[in-house]
Order: sequence, then C-alpha cells, then structure tokens
Amino acid sequence: MHRAMQFLSDNAASVHPRVWDAMRAADAPQPPYDSDALSQRLDAAFSDLFGRPCAVLWVATGTAANCLALATLVPPHSGVICHREAHIETDEGGAPGFYTHGAKLILIDGDGAKIDTAGIDAAIGAIRKDVHQVQPQAVSVTQASEYGRCYRPDEMAAVAETARRHGLKLHVDGARFANAVAHLGCDPWLACQGATVLSFGCVKNGGMSAEALVFFDEGLADLARVRRKRAGHLQSKGRFLAAQILAMVEDGLWLENARAANAAAQELAGAASERLLHPVEANEVFLRLSPNEREALRKQGFSFYDWGDDAARLVTAWNSDPTAVGALARAIATL
Amino acid sequence: MHRAMQFLSDNAASVHPRVWDAMRAADAPQPPYDSDALSQRLDAAFSDLFGRPCAVLWVATGTAANCLALATLVPPHSGVICHREAHIETDEGGAPGFYTHGAKLILIDGDGAKIDTAGIDAAIGAIRKDVHQVQPQAVSVTQASEYGRCYRPDEMAAVAETARRHGLKLHVDGARFANAVAHLGCDPWLACQGATVLSFGCVKNGGMSAEALVFFDEGLADLARVRRKRAGHLQSKGRFLAAQILAMVEDGLWLENARAANAAAQELAGAASERLLHPVEANEVFLRLSPNEREALRKQGFSFYDWGDDAARLVTAWNSDPTAVGALARAIATL
Amino acid sequence: MHRAMQFLSDNAASVHPRVWDAMRAADAPQPPYDSDALSQRLDAAFSDLFGRPCAVLWVATGTAANCLALATLVPPHSGVICHREAHIETDEGGAPGFYTHGAKLILIDGDGAKIDTAGIDAAIGAIRKDVHQVQPQAVSVTQASEYGRCYRPDEMAAVAETARRHGLKLHVDGARFANAVAHLGCDPWLACQGATVLSFGCVKNGGMSAEALVFFDEGLADLARVRRKRAGHLQSKGRFLAAQILAMVEDGLWLENARAANAAAQELAGAASERLLHPVEANEVFLRLSPNEREALRKQGFSFYDWGDDAARLVTAWNSDPTAVGALARAIATL
Amino acid sequence: MHRAMQFLSDNAASVHPRVWDAMRAADAPQPPYDSDALSQRLDAAFSDLFGRPCAVLWVATGTAANCLALATLVPPHSGVICHREAHIETDEGGAPGFYTHGAKLILIDGDGAKIDTAGIDAAIGAIRKDVHQVQPQAVSVTQASEYGRCYRPDEMAAVAETARRHGLKLHVDGARFANAVAHLGCDPWLACQGATVLSFGCVKNGGMSAEALVFFDEGLADLARVRRKRAGHLQSKGRFLAAQILAMVEDGLWLENARAANAAAQELAGAASERLLHPVEANEVFLRLSPNEREALRKQGFSFYDWGDDAARLVTAWNSDPTAVGALARAIATL
Repeated sequence: MHRAMQFLSDNAASVHPRVWDAMRAADAPQPPYDSDALSQRLDAAFSDLFGRPCAVLWVATGTAANCLALATLVPPHSGVICHREAHIETDEGGAPGFYTHGAKLILIDGDGAKIDTAGIDAAIGAIRKDVHQVQPQAVSVTQASEYGRCYRPDEMAAVAETARRHGLKLHVDGARFANAVAHLGCDPWLACQGATVLSFGCVKNGGMSAEALVFFDEGLADLARVRRKRAGHLQSKGRFLAAQILAMVEDGLWLENARAANAAAQELAGAASERLLHPVEANEVFLRLSPNEREALRKQGFSFYDWGDDAARLVTAWNSDPTAVGALARAIATL
Repeated sequence: MHRAMQFLSDNAASVHPRVWDAMRAADAPQPPYDSDALSQRLDAAFSDLFGRPCAVLWVATGTAANCLALATLVPPHSGVICHREAHIETDEGGAPGFYTHGAKLILIDGDGAKIDTAGIDAAIGAIRKDVHQVQPQAVSVTQASEYGRCYRPDEMAAVAETARRHGLKLHVDGARFANAVAHLGCDPWLACQGATVLSFGCVKNGGMSAEALVFFDEGLADLARVRRKRAGHLQSKGRFLAAQILAMVEDGLWLENARAANAAAQELAGAASERLLHPVEANEVFLRLSPNEREALRKQGFSFYDWGDDAARLVTAWNSDPTAVGALARAIATL
Repeated sequence: MHRAMQFLSDNAASVHPRVWDAMRAADAPQPPYDSDALSQRLDAAFSDLFGRPCAVLWVATGTAANCLALATLVPPHSGVICHREAHIETDEGGAPGFYTHGAKLILIDGDGAKIDTAGIDAAIGAIRKDVHQVQPQAVSVTQASEYGRCYRPDEMAAVAETARRHGLKLHVDGARFANAVAHLGCDPWLACQGATVLSFGCVKNGGMSAEALVFFDEGLADLARVRRKRAGHLQSKGRFLAAQILAMVEDGLWLENARAANAAAQELAGAASERLLHPVEANEVFLRLSPNEREALRKQGFSFYDWGDDAARLVTAWNSDPTAVGALARAIATL
Repeated sequence: MHRAMQFLSDNAASVHPRVWDAMRAADAPQPPYDSDALSQRLDAAFSDLFGRPCAVLWVATGTAANCLALATLVPPHSGVICHREAHIETDEGGAPGFYTHGAKLILIDGDGAKIDTAGIDAAIGAIRKDVHQVQPQAVSVTQASEYGRCYRPDEMAAVAETARRHGLKLHVDGARFANAVAHLGCDPWLACQGATVLSFGCVKNGGMSAEALVFFDEGLADLARVRRKRAGHLQSKGRFLAAQILAMVEDGLWLENARAANAAAQELAGAASERLLHPVEANEVFLRLSPNEREALRKQGFSFYDWGDDAARLVTAWNSDPTAVGALARAIATL
C-alpha cells in the first residue's frame, strides 16, 4: 500500500518520530508495570492539561479503554445510554458485554451520531423503575462522534448536566478527542466537561499502542487498576506506553497532529462541499460517491472505505501527505 | 535503579536491539489489526519452529495469552487442572475467572510447581461425575515452572497422554518457554508436545509488548481471534507486535537470549549450591538466605525479591551483566 | 383484590386443582433433584406431545427457561436475533446478558412483535463478517408474541428455514405457547417447528412454579442440566415441578386451560372490535381506551394495566370468571 | 424407596402438613412477584425472630440463596474466604463463579469443616496487597457445617469480629441453620451474629421450594432483588414461597422440625459412639463403617451414602420414623 494515497483510516498510520524517540528513551531499566517513573508522571501531565486533578492509566487499545471505563462505572445488572452508532455498540466485538459482565447498552438516536438531553430524557422516561427492566447508571458519548461531529462546550455541558440530574455517570469516548479539541479550539476540559472518565486516544493520532484512561473522579482509578490487571492489560514494560502518552501531551504534539489531520480533511471537504453527508469537523469526510465515482478514484490510486452503496468515508491522519490530499481534492472536484 | 545489579525480574529488562530494529522496520503503513504482512507471517514462522501446522495470534501480555487460551479451551461451567502455585492461580489477578466467565481452577500439588500423571489422575478421581461438581476440561502446565523447573520431554509426554486419556485439552504456559528449551536442548515441540495451545513468551526474553499464542489445534485460533477482540486486545497497529515476535523466532534470537539468561543463573547457582531451594534449570535461582544475609547483599547494591522469611529469588535476564553476575556470585559465596 | 374483576395478568392466577392434586401425590419420598420418577417421565410426555424425541428439564420461571435456553445455544461472544419488543429484551432484567455472559440481543422490528424472514435477512446482511461486529448464532421468537399474535405454521416454518439457512439455532419463547396452539388449532409441533429448544410455559396457564424447557436437539439438554445447577435452579424436591408439568400435558389440561383463556379474550375483543390495537389471537387484548374511559372501567371494579397513554392491556386467564368477562365486555361496549 | 428406612439426605423429605396448608391458603389471587401480602410479611417475621431489622427475599434453592448473597457482597474481581469443604466450593456446580462473575473462593482448612480466626488471619496474611493477587472482601461460614458441626456463639462472634477487623463482609450459609440453633439452644441471632446476610434454609427442614435470604444490612436487599430477577429467580407466584417460609418461622415449626431431626441423629450417635468421625451436633452422623458393615445394613433395608471407603453418612430429617431410627441404631450397635 502506498501510504500517500491511503485514506482508509488513521488507525494504522505511522508512529510519530517524537513518539519513537520517547520510547527509545524509556528503554533504560525501570520497575515493572506502572511503578516506573514515566507512568508515575501521567497523573500530573493530565492534571495540567485539564486544569483539575486526574488519575490516569495507560491501556493498549481504545476498546480496552472504553470498556474498562464502563466496567468501572456501572455494575453488571445496569445499563449505559449511548448512541445507536456508537463505537462501543457497533465495532467493539461485544467487549462492553464482556467487561461489564453483561450490562446493557441502551441505544438512542441523534443527528451525526451525537446524543442530546432530549434523547437521554426520553430513554429514561421509557424505562419502568422496577427490577424487570434494566436501569441505566451511565451515559457514554463520543467526542468526536462516529461521523466526525463534535460536541460544542455548551452541548457537552448539557449532556453532563442531564446525566447528573438522573444520577448517571458520564463516559467520554475520545478516540479522536484531539481532533475534537483541535476543531473546537477550546480548553480541553470544556470538550469533555462533566465526564467521570475520558478515553483519551493516542493510537489514531501518531501513537503506537497506548491510550490514556483519564479519571476525573480519581477514586475510581484504583478500581480500574484492579480490573486492568484482571483483563490482562497490565503490561510489565508499561513504561513504553507511558512514554508514548507523555510524548503526545507534554509538549502539545497531540494537538499539532490533530490539527494537521483536520486541515487535510477540510481541504477534501472544501473540494466536495455539495457531496458531504455530514459537516466536516474532525478528520473524517463522508461523501456521496456513486460506485462509478469511487471506482474512478480508486483507479487513480486512492484507497478508502465504501460507506453503504452510494457513499465513501475518507479519513485523514497526522501524516496525510499534502500532495496526495491536494490530488484527491482535485480528483473529487473534477468527478 | 542500576540495571547491572538488578535481579528482581526479567519482566522489565530492556528490549533487545534486534527487536527495536524490527519494530522500526514495521513503521511503514500496513493494513490494520492482524491483516498486515508481518502478522500474516506468524503462522509460517511457528509452523517451521515446531515442525507442524500452527495458527498464531499476538497479544500484549502473558496474562492475556494464558487466559485467552483457557477461555478458548473450556466453557464457563467447567474446570482447569493446574498446580496450586501456577501463575494463573496466584498472580494473574483473577484473570482466568474473568476470561473464562467463572471456570474453576482445580488445584493440585507437585514438586517444583510441576504436576504429573498421578496428580491429575487423583484430582479427577476425587470428582463425582455429576452436575454438583465442576468437571475439568483442560490441564494447564507451566514450562518452565514457577520455580524454574522444566518438564523433560518424557514428563511432558506423560502429562499430555494423561490429559488425552481423560478427554482434556492441554495448555502450556510458556512465559519462559525459551529458557526451558534452552535448558532441555531438545526440539521445541518435545518441550510442549501434546499441547493444544502454547503461550509462547517474548516479553521476559528481550521483547517489549508481544507474546505469541500458538494453537496446534488450528481450528481454535479463529475463536481466539474473536475473543481477543472482545477482550480489547486487538491492536490496530498489530504489525509492531508481530515484528517483535518474528524478530525473536525467525533467526533464533529467542534461544540466544534464553541461553544467556540461563548461563547467568547457572553461575549464581554454582556459587551457592548448598543454598538452593530448587535445582536451577532456567533463569530463576531460589536461595536460602537469612534476613541478615539478604541485607548484606543489598548493601552491596544487589536487588532481588524476598521469598518468604528465609529465602530470596534471583532472576537473570537476556542482558544480565556478566560483571554484576560474577560479583553477585562471589558475594553469595563469601557470605 | 377481587379475583373475578382482575385482568392485569395471567401470571398470578390461581393454581389449577389438578395441578394441586398432582403435587400432593408427589409428596411421597423420592430421590432428589431430577432423578425422581416424575422428572424421569418428562421426556416421554413431551416426545408424545410433539411426535418426536425430546429431552426436557423443569425450571421455576420463564426467565430462567428462556435464558438457560439461550446460554445453551450461543457462546458469550455471539448474538441472538429477536424482536425489539421481545420479553427477553424488555422484561427480563438483563437475565439474557447474565446467563449468556454478555451475548448481544440483535433487535429487529416486525408487526405485532413478530419477526419474519425479511427482517432476519436484513439484520444479518447489515453485519460485517469480522471480529469487530457481533455475529448472531441464534434466533429467538415468541409464540404467542408480546402482543398476543401467533406465528402460523407456515410463518414458523419460514423463520426456521431462514435461521437454518444462516446457520442459526432457533429458540421459541412459549410462555403462552398453549394459547398459541389453542388458537392455531394445529399439531403442537407445527407451532414451533424447526425449534432447537422451546420454553414451554405452565405458570401463566394454571401452574404454580414450573416451566418446561424442551430440547428437540436432545444432545443439548445435558449442557442445560449443568447450567441449570450452576444457576441455582436445580431444586432438590424437583418432583413437585415435574408433577405440575405432567399434570398440564399428560391429559390435555394445558390446551383446556388455554382455550378457556382465549375464549374469554375473544369475548372481550368481540365487544370492542373497533378499539383493537392488535388482532386478538391468544389471551391478551390491547384496546384504545382514553384515560377517562379507563377510569370509568376501574370505577366499576375492573383492574388492568395501562398501555401507554391511550390504551390498556387486558389479560384473561384459565379461570377468568365468565360473569366478570361478560360484565367487562358490556362495560366496554357501552363506553 | 421406603421412606422409613431412608437416611440418604434430608433434602428430599416430604413437605410438612403445615407448609402444605399455608400454600393452599395462599392460592387466592394476589399481586405478582413479591408484592403480595405474604411476601410483604417476611421482613417483620424475621425481624421478630432475630430481634433486629432484617430485609428478606425468598429464593427457590440454597445454591441460589448462597450465590445471590455472595454476588451482593463482593465484586467480580474479589475473593471470598471459606472452608475447603464448604458447600459453595464443593457442591454448587460452580454457581459462585457464575453469580459473582468469577470471584475467587479462597480456601482454608479447619476442623469439622469450620473455620476460625487463625485461619482467616493466615489466609489474608499470605496475600500480597497488589493487583496481581485477588483480595478477599467477604468470609462465608456454614452453620451447621458440612460435617454437622455448629459454631458456638463465641466462635461465631470471633469469626465475625475477625471479618470486621479485616473489612470483610460475612455470609452465613444456613442450609441447616435450624438444626444448629436447635442444638445450640441459643437465641437465633447468637448463632449467626455479625452476619451481613444469612441463607436461612427451609427445604431440608420440611419446606418444599423456598429458602429465605436474610439481610441484616438491609440496604443490600434491594441490590439482591435486582440480581434475583436477573438470575431468573423472581417467581410470579412468589406468594407460594413466602407462605412456606412464614409457616416455618411464624409459629416455631422450624425449630420443632429441627429438634426432631437432631434427636434422631442423637439416637443413632448414641448407638455408635466409638464409630463417630465427628461429634454429632445437628442431623448428620458420620460413622466408620467397613464395606461389609455397610452391606449388612443395606441388606436390612437401610439406605445412606458411602463416605469414602470406610465410612458412611446418615442424615435424619424432620420426619425420620422413630421405629426405623431405633431399628437402625440397634443394627449398628450389633454389627
């Protein structure tokens, strides 16, 4: 596969050189698991980033981050309200059911794969308060959403307030949180305000194999540590995961990379504004493209996923080649 | 921590340069998950190594490897026979219970944390064949054992035959399989013969974050792939795990590293033969050492774990420093 | 509560005298669990009823019957296709997630809470065949459905054939199977043809505390027996459950009771044909009734559940009092 | 089987006439599940019995009672300390693993299948306080034990205090609690003092299909109610279970029956004092009996279980026939 022409996903992009450097620097011997000096720096790094106390664990994948978070928030007999197209529902192979021991995802709709106050209220209103129906104990939102849509600070605040009002915890799946913050241009906390726990993604943004699970309710982190071990996710050379995460957040690389990916997506969007299925806010571009049009683009060497019968999904990454992006933009414009 | 004087564990040692090189070479873009060219090479590499068809998955930790293996072998309502001091029983934070959905570890005794035919037969003989008692469906052995003891080929064959006779699958926890094979000097298959699945360790042997789960019953591997995703262990940049494993096995690095670690352990053992709690076969040395003696060694800069009140565990690694090993050997000899 | 005016549910009705008699007759000492003579007769009784070999277990509740069935049919990482309003989805408190260890209910729509071939095909067509999406391994249908609708023999055959074509097992939730067969007037097997396992309800039909789990794939029954014990559902005096079931099926009491309940429902339906939300086939009557109309009926002493804002659900039972049924029918007709 | 000669178990004995009467009286219609008037009386009945506030649930089996209790007390990643021969470990088909989602039974020894302070302290002392080892959060004791031994009030107090000191909850498996209290002659609370929850057995003591789960920490009962439904144990005609329990406890039938069973056991014990493996305190008698001696007794028509190669277990029940008991006592005495 020729990297330059690849718009399939950001999830297999190359690792950023500064991440590599940090990993190499971590090779010196350290205590195992998460007692090394790098792992010990995570809490402070994220407390700085978010301007409030955080307790942070590394894990290897977004699925593990999300599902450990959910398992920490809710007991097996309860439910989690999320969008019908949330990643935890559609693309995690049933991992939420595994980690939570069978808790139920309570699915609601919403434009752009985002949920809102009315949707949450309606879902809860439809549930009888008895032992025959599963009672939700958390809400999970995705920032940016499966369609690359971002919750604005006021939207996030409204969701958080609604969750709080119903006595529910709030999980934010931030596999592309960097892209959301880069788009919103706001303080990172405002993009996830009210969250009990945030899955802070790195792998899609220039990392190799580390995501950060950020607990704003620090008391829950110890429980997550126990469950991380129980899930086989406590790596003995955890310093290499901590190194990746610190490289991303301590010097702003996470936003730098996200801005580059977002800019490439904007360039593609600008060339195809009348084809957009969703406004482009992060690094995903959903375009109406007929089978013939997709075929034409592929013949020119571009790769991407079909999205149903008449559309395609293009994903840019931190290292999307400007020449290729420009070429694809022109190719779309001239279809 | 000064690496040279560290005999705490092999689990946090540095990553071997050839592993680093392989990882860097894997940075070029590839399809995600395990559809990259490196991951696709694993089956062949291990089929060569073991002289028979294998289906191989990478996972990040030994706990995940072991517990995915067990969950693939046995249903939730069944049991797994293992030694009372097996890692899956004592040090995996209940992960077997999590992965298998509550299957029972049926614990038996045996010298050196090894089990044998008589032990398996006795355990099975004590279980009524009814629904009130949990019925075993697998046996798990550790090669090398928690005390660094190895199953000789004839011992492994006897265990495998006993398992087969009772209709049980066989799992081999090979977190230190390399050390066992280096000690036994036999064909690798003979060291795990009869296994349904082998957890083939790399992390303790110069790897960073990859273990290989080797299915000799290839039909089970697809089930393990589904469960790996469900456990959040399917990394999108899996090529970096495959690269580590291939670096270990394709050119014999796994045995080279294990021989170095074993040799260092032998040097320590030779200096303390009258203190040994267990014969030294792999890279772990269990020594009778009084609190005062341990204190004396620590004052000289050596680090290691206490083993109960009157003993210590010393673990060597692929990169144990010869000078430090020699110094420690002399220090013990002159206590 | 005055029984005669009660149309809330059939699930708390009195126990039929012949069931009581059978239980008293079972009081003589017998071996425990399901090794008593009555439990041993279940297989033959249902093999007679269905004209094919069956293996049958008693359990205490419909939820346990359904969920033991599902857990026997599918592994934890898989899914079960069912209607969005199926009892297993809406009213079993998450028990399917508990029993199956987190398998996913894949929800589809369909008129009258019934599903059909097109719905199953569409659901399966929408699932990518990869490890990221949960793959179904069974279909569950309810006969009669949550809205008292019955699958005709040809409809059941079509569902079964569709399941078979996709390699899926078929579960039939027959909490009101008797009412369905009474309505259809067909051979019992035709009302569940192609099922792998049937939850055969007794409690709503004059029983006290026993449902029959009927395996047409007899090889699965032993697995269900192990799981029944593991779920704490193996009663030591199981003869009293077997007695209830035999009293229902050996002399046709199950159909006799169901016909009585269905006839009462028909009488109500006949008095309110223009108000019916669903055709009345079994013993449930869903009527458009305004809040004022419901209030008026309740003032006359009738009890029933609201069904949303503008409707009510009336359920008849084996012992619905003809006088009360007639009175209610007239009261509705004269609203 | 001729009841009179049966000493196999108390678990399949006939149902006491007063229990039958109470069930018949409960046949009048009532609201479903546990909202009927009888179920609503349980809390008060047990609060009277124990002289302190209780919240009480019925369930159908002792296994369900024990395992619901454990699942309410401890999270999946934790452990429960119990005797190596406790029923939850040896005879519940892995139900504790199912209900608790894989929590670990941490097994300790103790004379007569009883545990004590030293055993609990030693078990906890051996567990490292890290995420690699499973941490206990509860203790479970059996009153009377698997060998029919009773915890005296001071022994129970010591166990409870030890549990409290370590921050552990306390579960008492009282499948034969009545027999224990009948033997001890103490206030019922003293026989389970300090318990968080008690499984109060009825089935072995003249009941049919109901055990009481008694929460002394009332706040936990609501959680148990949710889990009871999720486990398929919420019967719609729950009034028949409540009726059984009330018949046992409201007029002292539970102690009356237990005293009868205990007296029969004492008569057997008195005839064989030199053969006793354990002091006889409740209704189980473990006797050294050679194969020939057992054969001789069986030829006279007595039935009982072998207990290993050279012993037998005789269990008396509330309705053990005095003539048969006397005959068996004489037969043993004259062996």
